[in-house]
Amino acid sequence: KVYFSYVDIHETMSSLVPQILEFNPSVIIAIGGGGFIPARILRTELKIPILAVSLELYDDTNNTTKPEVKKIQWFDEQSEVGSKVRNQKILIVDEVDDTRTTLQYCVEEVINTNNPSEIAVAVLHNKLKPKRGILPDTVTYFSGADVEDHWNCYPWDA
Amino acid sequence: KVYFSYVDIHETMSSLVPQILEFNPSVIIAIGGGGFIPARILRTELKIPILAVSLELYDDTNNTTKPEVKKIQWFDEQSEVGSKVRNQKILIVDEVDDTRTTLQYCVEEVINTNNPSEIAVAVLHNKLKPKRGILPDTVTYFSGADVEDHWNCYPWDA
Repeated sequence: KVYFSYVDIHETMSSLVPQILEFNPSVIIAIGGGGFIPARILRTELKIPILAVSLELYDDTNNTTKPEVKKIQWFDEQSEVGSKVRNQKILIVDEVDDTRTTLQYCVEEVINTNNPSEIAVAVLHNKLKPKRGILPDTVTYFSGADVEDHWNCYPWDA
Repeated sequence: KVYFSYVDIHETMSSLVPQILEFNPSVIIAIGGGGFIPARILRTELKIPILAVSLELYDDTNNTTKPEVKKIQWFDEQSEVGSKVRNQKILIVDEVDDTRTTLQYCVEEVINTNNPSEIAVAVLHNKLKPKRGILPDTVTYFSGADVEDHWNCYPWDA
């Protein structure tokens, strides 16, 4: 088990700010619940609003088809912040990129449902391991730190 | 200015867990962006899902009418977690109860739009000052700590 403090995480996320400002997104989409704290830390410096989404993946038992994705929470595109996604640049934020499956499905659902012009993904930690999920080549990828494939303990899970 | 650390905040929010478990909510509604981190800290111990909402209040200049509330982000009641609000117990979470205006309007909007059976509010800090907003008597109120009316600096705003 590897433990991370709030201060570690604040510093790691903040280190991404210059690159993200260069990408220049209009809105953050935070994948809940893990993405909420990293997204809130980024928002102070990016000064753009946060939309929250949650997904659940159900792998079928025989693995012959793609897992089914359930949108546990999504946003209303008619709302003020929701309208900042379609045809605009967005930043998807999560805590850890483990198998990459959730990120893949989040990116696909945002493209299919809300069609942004460009997508970047920012994660606190990218686990160095083979990935099951694939991100399109057009997605810009930011990771605060690459970490070994250990059990990461985040302070909000303490 | 008064500075709070992530560890302070984690401990203050966690101190509310026994009372909140007694209230026994089905879902957290986190008021963004300040409520995201307190809500995420609570979720680990409450083990219930988080919905995120954001409001903006526009006071009219001559103050003769009530401020207009704009729902910057709201949730879809048809979604899995969104369906846990109507006729159920909910917990609204925010970082600081200052003038109470945002809390009042959030409570009113949730009642009008989603009609939960019972509402509790949990804030990290309640500022000891006259409040402009009013909460209905039926709302249960939890504050992690009562604080003087200073400028509070939260670590995510650092």
